[in-house]
Amino acid sequence: MAPLPPSMAPPPPSMAPRMTALLLRVLTFAFLVASLAILTTNTSTLEIGDEVFKIRFKDVYSYRYMLAATVFGIAYTVLQVAFTLNHIVKRNAQTSSDGNPVFDFYGDKVISYILATGAAAAIGATKDMKPLLTALGVNSFLNKGYASASLLLLGFVCTAMLSVLSSYALPKKV
Amino acid sequence: MAPLPPSMAPPPPSMAPRMTALLLRVLTFAFLVASLAILTTNTSTLEIGDEVFKIRFKDVYSYRYMLAATVFGIAYTVLQVAFTLNHIVKRNAQTSSDGNPVFDFYGDKVISYILATGAAAAIGATKDMKPLLTALGVNSFLNKGYASASLLLLGFVCTAMLSVLSSYALPKKV
Repeated sequence: MAPLPPSMAPPPPSMAPRMTALLLRVLTFAFLVASLAILTTNTSTLEIGDEVFKIRFKDVYSYRYMLAATVFGIAYTVLQVAFTLNHIVKRNAQTSSDGNPVFDFYGDKVISYILATGAAAAIGATKDMKPLLTALGVNSFLNKGYASASLLLLGFVCTAMLSVLSSYALPKKV
Repeated sequence: MAPLPPSMAPPPPSMAPRMTALLLRVLTFAFLVASLAILTTNTSTLEIGDEVFKIRFKDVYSYRYMLAATVFGIAYTVLQVAFTLNHIVKRNAQTSSDGNPVFDFYGDKVISYILATGAAAAIGATKDMKPLLTALGVNSFLNKGYASASLLLLGFVCTAMLSVLSSYALPKKV
């Protein structure tokens, strides 16, 4: 449980894992922003008898949760990219801070669960609403829901990989 | 990257973390079995005009995925409990095997994502189908779907904690 004595401290890690992580974070960011763009611009009109309703992502609870998950994911990813860039600049200035591996570990873990559940909720709801709504002509609305959820799923895959990396970077407790 | 020389090998870990893990796995098992029991016995009748249909969990795609996730989770949990008991017996016989931390790490991680997505898909689909199906009198069917998904969610929470434990137990790569 005691911290390692200085002689046993690991050598300062190379930049390679940090660069891999940066690449994965940029990819996550791109997937999440694309997902958000499709989700928020997704509208459709619904005709019931003579009345015409406008349907938006807000009308589907799962899509609202997906929006929240995506926004959380983007905020966290931007924060982490900023930390990484800050770290790169500091290393160039001969400072030896190594970020905060415990924050990275829990952050990546929690955000990856949030992204996974966001994508799963949206895909599950879309799949099960489709047969109930075919008569109403909202197929293109639901297909865009799928597209948005699939991009979120790709963002989740990147974050899950980041979570593996940050688990390996965790200082050992025992 | 090279394995630690014998002099730097960590001391054999105490039984406490293994017992915590065992307790969490037994809890996971209980939640998943309860979720499975509610899910598979959930039936309802659906009246459309003069016709009466029987509705089962198989008719909802998300519930099928939830079933698959739960069965996977139960199989993995039983396997891990068997490994742990085997390990306890072996330790009593003075053998010093420490299981396979890398298998535990990836297993807990993957299973926790599977359980999270299973619960999320079922909750999302139930929430969004409810307003579309209120007229058909399947509310109790959907409520049992929620109950099953909530138990699965509790199973996920236990597995997520196990995943944190197994990440800390991971041998350091660098």
